[in-house]
Amino acid sequence: MSEFKLTTVEEFEAATNRLLETGAKVGADSWQMRVKNQTPHCKFGEQGICCRICAMGPCRITAKAPRGICGCDAHGIVGRNYLKFTAGGAATHSDHGREICNTLYHSKPDGAYRVKDPDKLIRIAKEWGVETEGKDIYDLAHEVAYMGLEEYGKVFGYQRFLDRMPAGQKEKLIELELAPRAIDREVSSSLHTAHMGCSSLPEQLVRQSLRCGMADGWGGSMAGTEFSDVLFGTPKPIETEANLGVMKEEDVNIVVHGHDPSLSEKICDWAEDPEMIALAKSVGAKGITISGVCCTSNEVAMRRGIPMAGNFLQQENVVLTGACEAIVVDVQCIFPALGPLSKCFHTKFVTTSPIARMPDSEFIRFDAETADEKAKAIVKLAVENFKNRKPELVHIPQLKQKATVGYSLEAIVKVLDNVTNSQVDVTGTTKPLLECVTSGVIRGAVAMVGCNNPKVRPDTAHIDLMKKLIANDIIIVASGCAAQAAAKAGLMDKRAKDLCGAGLKRVCELADIPPVLHMGSCVDISRMMVLVAELAKDSGLQINQLPVVGCAPEWMSEKAVSIGNYVVATGLDTFLGVDPYVAGSTEMQYWLTEGVRQWTGSAYTVETDIDKLVDKMIERIEQKREAIGI
Amino acid sequence: MSEFKLTTVEEFEAATNRLLETGAKVGADSWQMRVKNQTPHCKFGEQGICCRICAMGPCRITAKAPRGICGCDAHGIVGRNYLKFTAGGAATHSDHGREICNTLYHSKPDGAYRVKDPDKLIRIAKEWGVETEGKDIYDLAHEVAYMGLEEYGKVFGYQRFLDRMPAGQKEKLIELELAPRAIDREVSSSLHTAHMGCSSLPEQLVRQSLRCGMADGWGGSMAGTEFSDVLFGTPKPIETEANLGVMKEEDVNIVVHGHDPSLSEKICDWAEDPEMIALAKSVGAKGITISGVCCTSNEVAMRRGIPMAGNFLQQENVVLTGACEAIVVDVQCIFPALGPLSKCFHTKFVTTSPIARMPDSEFIRFDAETADEKAKAIVKLAVENFKNRKPELVHIPQLKQKATVGYSLEAIVKVLDNVTNSQVDVTGTTKPLLECVTSGVIRGAVAMVGCNNPKVRPDTAHIDLMKKLIANDIIIVASGCAAQAAAKAGLMDKRAKDLCGAGLKRVCELADIPPVLHMGSCVDISRMMVLVAELAKDSGLQINQLPVVGCAPEWMSEKAVSIGNYVVATGLDTFLGVDPYVAGSTEMQYWLTEGVRQWTGSAYTVETDIDKLVDKMIERIEQKREAIGI
Repeated sequence: MSEFKLTTVEEFEAATNRLLETGAKVGADSWQMRVKNQTPHCKFGEQGICCRICAMGPCRITAKAPRGICGCDAHGIVGRNYLKFTAGGAATHSDHGREICNTLYHSKPDGAYRVKDPDKLIRIAKEWGVETEGKDIYDLAHEVAYMGLEEYGKVFGYQRFLDRMPAGQKEKLIELELAPRAIDREVSSSLHTAHMGCSSLPEQLVRQSLRCGMADGWGGSMAGTEFSDVLFGTPKPIETEANLGVMKEEDVNIVVHGHDPSLSEKICDWAEDPEMIALAKSVGAKGITISGVCCTSNEVAMRRGIPMAGNFLQQENVVLTGACEAIVVDVQCIFPALGPLSKCFHTKFVTTSPIARMPDSEFIRFDAETADEKAKAIVKLAVENFKNRKPELVHIPQLKQKATVGYSLEAIVKVLDNVTNSQVDVTGTTKPLLECVTSGVIRGAVAMVGCNNPKVRPDTAHIDLMKKLIANDIIIVASGCAAQAAAKAGLMDKRAKDLCGAGLKRVCELADIPPVLHMGSCVDISRMMVLVAELAKDSGLQINQLPVVGCAPEWMSEKAVSIGNYVVATGLDTFLGVDPYVAGSTEMQYWLTEGVRQWTGSAYTVETDIDKLVDKMIERIEQKREAIGI
Repeated sequence: MSEFKLTTVEEFEAATNRLLETGAKVGADSWQMRVKNQTPHCKFGEQGICCRICAMGPCRITAKAPRGICGCDAHGIVGRNYLKFTAGGAATHSDHGREICNTLYHSKPDGAYRVKDPDKLIRIAKEWGVETEGKDIYDLAHEVAYMGLEEYGKVFGYQRFLDRMPAGQKEKLIELELAPRAIDREVSSSLHTAHMGCSSLPEQLVRQSLRCGMADGWGGSMAGTEFSDVLFGTPKPIETEANLGVMKEEDVNIVVHGHDPSLSEKICDWAEDPEMIALAKSVGAKGITISGVCCTSNEVAMRRGIPMAGNFLQQENVVLTGACEAIVVDVQCIFPALGPLSKCFHTKFVTTSPIARMPDSEFIRFDAETADEKAKAIVKLAVENFKNRKPELVHIPQLKQKATVGYSLEAIVKVLDNVTNSQVDVTGTTKPLLECVTSGVIRGAVAMVGCNNPKVRPDTAHIDLMKKLIANDIIIVASGCAAQAAAKAGLMDKRAKDLCGAGLKRVCELADIPPVLHMGSCVDISRMMVLVAELAKDSGLQINQLPVVGCAPEWMSEKAVSIGNYVVATGLDTFLGVDPYVAGSTEMQYWLTEGVRQWTGSAYTVETDIDKLVDKMIERIEQKREAIGI
C-alpha cells in the first residue's frame, strides 16, 4: 500500500490548468473565462434588492428610491426573492422524487426497473399503514409508489414522513404552520405569497420559505432517496475512486451527469453488457468505463462503486480530457456550456429529459417504458464515437484517490452494530454513536453539503473545513458535491483517520470507517434528516438539542436554499459560505439568522470567511453540548 | 336622463392630481413619485437578460459576455425568466381557485357560505360524471368541491375542463404536451425546467410556459370562476357605477380590494346588517357604502351591483380621498404602499390572508370557518373609525359613470335568446352571435383584459383601443382592470352604442347591451375561454379559426403572462402593449410571436405603439374572416 497523502487543491488546479490549455487550443470557452466576464456582479442582484416580479419594473432599491413602484421596500423585495428562490429549489428536488416514484410505479419483475430492496419497501409500506402480508412485492411497489405520488398533490393532510420525527415535533410544526402539506401545493402557495401585491412582510416570507423547504426535505427529497433505495438498492460501504484520473484513455469513456439514477443505472447496466463490451473492443477500445459527475455520480458510486470523475465545477473538465466519448445527462446542474464545448471535441452531449433540453445536444428521450432500449442506444452511440477521438487532444490528468462510500442510514447503523457488544447492547440503533458523543470522544457532527461556486476557490472551503473539523473530533456526514470534494482530496479514504483528533481517530479505527461519511446525492440530505431524528429519539432529546450542525460553504443552486430551509426548520443550525442574496435587508437577515430560532430552535449563520465559519460551527457544537450538560 | 358623454382620461388625471395635492399635504408617497425614482429601469432586467437563478451570479448578457457563468446564453436566460414569470402567475390564479373550492367544500345550509346557484353546481357535477339524482345539494357541493381540489394534485390525467373544448382539441394538446396535468404539478415542473442546469432551449421553455398557463386557464382559474358562481351566484346583467365618485362623503366608506369573493361577499353582507347600519348612524354617518378596487370589485359588481371605485392604479386614490374608513384586502395586486399611506390618514388597512401579509396593516385572519365573525368585526372596525376622519383632508372627486355589468357566459346566451325567434331557432346557444359575425354585422370580438401599468398612460390604451374597435363593429368582452377602465370611461353604459359602427350599434340595440361586455375578474378570463369554445362548437370551427383575438395593452402582473399563454394555447392571437421582458432574445421572440403558431394556430404580437396595436388586431380579425370565407 502506497503512502497516504491528501491531494491538494493546488494539484486539482494544476490539472485543470493543463486541461484549459487543451481548451485554448480548440477555442473552447470555460467557466473560468466566463466568471471573468461576469464579474463584478450587479450589486442590486447580489443584495437581493432588484425586483422583476411584475412588469411595472424592474425596480431597484437605493437610498433615493427606497421603495419599488408598488411600494414594496427592500425587506419585502429581498424576502420575496428569497421565497421564490426556495420554491425553485423545492420544486426541482421534489420533481426528481416524483420521477423516482414514477419509476417505481412502472417497476416489473421482468422489466427495466425492478425492486432491489424489498425489505426497505416493506418497511416503508408498514410505516405508511399499508397491509404487506401476502402481497406480491410488485403490487406493493405500485401501491406504495402511488401513495408517494399522492404526497405531491393530496387535498388534505401533511407529509407522511413527518411521522419519523421525535414525539411532538410534527405537532409543533403544524401549530407553527411550518409542516408541509402536499408538496406541489407548498410550491404554488410560495409563488402566490411572493406574487405582486401579496406578502411583503419578512416574517411571513421566511415562514413560507421554511414550509416550502420542508415539503422538499421531508417530502420530495425523502421520497427520492427512499424509493431510489427500493429500486436500486440501499447503499452500503463500497470502495471506489474519485477525480479525473478514473477515466481510462484506453477505454470508451461515458460520463453520466445529472441527478436521477433511473438514467444512470441503466447506462451502467448496458455498459456491462457483453455485446457492448465486444463492440467497444471491435472499435479499438479495451473496454467501457463509466464515471460520474455531480449527484448522478454520487448515486452510482454509492450503489455500484462507479468512480467519480468530479463535482460540479469539473463538468467541463471531463470533456476537456479529449477522451470523453459521451456525456449523458438528465436534469439539474448541467452547464449549457457543455453543448458548445462538446462541439470542440468529438464528445457526444446527450440530453435525455424534456425537463432539461439544451441547444447543441443530441436529445434521446428517456423514460421508464423504453429505458433499456434507449440506454443501449446511448451506450452504443458512445462506443461508436470512440473512433472519432482526436489523439492529439487526449490528456487525462492522473489524479485520483480511493474512497469508501455508501453510508446510508442503514449502513451507518450496521457499522455501529459492529462496535456494539451484542451480548448486552441493543442493536439497530444510533446509540453507540450517541455514547461516543456523550462521552466526548466525538464532539459532534457536521453535515457538509452543497455545490461548488466560483465565489469560493473551488473545493477549498469543503476540504479546509472538513480537515479542521475532523482534527477537532467532529465527524462529517457529506453529500452532493461536498462529498465529492472530500473524496477527491482523499478524506473518504479510511487512512484519513490519521488526520483526526484522537477521539475520532479511535472511532474510525473501531468502526472501520473514514472520518467523512458519504451519505449520497443532494436529495439524500433527507438521509441526514432521518439520522438526526433517530439520534434525537434514541437520546430522548429534540433534534435542535443535538450537537449537530449543517454547512454548505460553496453552495450555488436554488435547491441548496431549499435544503438550508428544511435543515433549519428541522432544528439544525445551518452555516452558509455564500450569501443567499439577502444582504440588502436587515429584517430578512434578522429573520434568517435569529428570528426563526423562536420557531425551530435553530437558525442560519452566513459567513464568507471560511476560517471564521469553522470556528463558529465548533463554537455552536460546544454550546449545544453545554446546554444538554455533556 | 342627462346627456351621455364619455369621461376622458384627462378628467381622470385631473381628479388624481387633486388627490395627490392632499397626499402632498400629509407627506404621502405615491406611485407617480415612485415611478420617477425607479426610471429609467435596468436595461438588463427589461430585456430579460439578467439571470439570478443560481448564486454563482447574478449574470448579465452583454456583447462581451454572451453567456452566463454556467454557459447559458441570452435565449436560455430570457426563456427561463419567462417560464418562471408564467409559473408565478399560474400558481397565483390557481391558488385563488383552490381557495374557492375550499370555501365550497365548507359550505353549509346554515353556514357563512351557501350554494346560491344549485343549477350550475348540478351542471358541473354532470359534466364531471357525478351522480346528482336525489343527492342533497350540500353533499353534492362537497363532493364536487373535493374533485375540484383534486385537480390541483391528481397523480394521473389532464384537467377535466379540457373536455369543454371543441372535438379533437384536447387530444391535439395532449399530443403536443401542452395539455395540463395536475395544476400544481405544472407549476413545479415549470420551476424544475427553469432551474439552474435544466432547460435552456427556447422551444422547450415556451412549450412548458404554455402548458403551465393552460393549467391556470383551463384549471385553476376556471375552477375559481365556476365555483364562485356556484357559491355566490352566476352573474347576470346588473346596473352599477364606476369611479371614485361612488364613494359617499356622508357614509362610512369601506373599500374591498384584492381578488377572492369569499372575503368581499361577507363584507358586503355585513355592511347591509341592520345592527351595523345602526352603528354607522350612531357615529354620525348616514350609512355604509362599500365600493371596490381591482378584481374584488369586479366580483361584487358583477353579482351585487356594488360600485367600482377604481382599478389597479387607483388603489392609492381611495385612501387619498380622506373618506376611506377601511380598505380591506385579501390577495394579489395590493400595493404594499397602502400600509404607510393609510398611516397618513385615519384609514384602517386590513389584511386578512396569510398569503398576503404586509407591514403597517391590521391583520385579521379570515377563513371559511369564522367568516361571519371576522367580517362583522372588520365592518365594525371601519364604522367605529368614521369618527377619526380628518374633515380637512376629505375630498371625493365627483366623477362616475353608469355601467351595466354581469355578462357571464350564461348571461350572454340569455341575452342572445332574447333576440332569437324561439318559434324557429334553437335557444341556449351562441348561434345568434355567430350569425351577426358571419353576416358581417359584427366583424369579430376582442377580449380586452389585464391591468394598468405606468409604462402606459393609465387607462388610455384600454379606452382608446375599445373606442376604435367598437367603431369598427368589433364587440368587446372585458375583464379585470381593463373592464374597470371601460366602466369608468362610460363604455359599459348602454348609451355607448352611439360610439359603435352601424352594425354593432344595431346589435346593442336589439340585444339591449353595451358594446363592451363586463365578463368579470381576471380569473374570469376562463369565461371567455368557454365562450370561444362554445362559439367554435356552435360554428363547427376550431377556436383558432374564429375572428376573435385577446388583448392586454396595460398588463403588469405574472398572472397576465400566464393568461396570455393560455389564451394563445387555446388558439387566440394575443396582443400585448407591454413587452414581457423578452426583448433580449430573438429566439424567444420568434417562438412567442411565430413558433407557437405551428402548435396552436395562434401567437403573440407585442406592440407598444397603441395605434399600431389596434390596427394589427383589426387586420388579424379580417384575416381570420377571410380564411373561413366570411
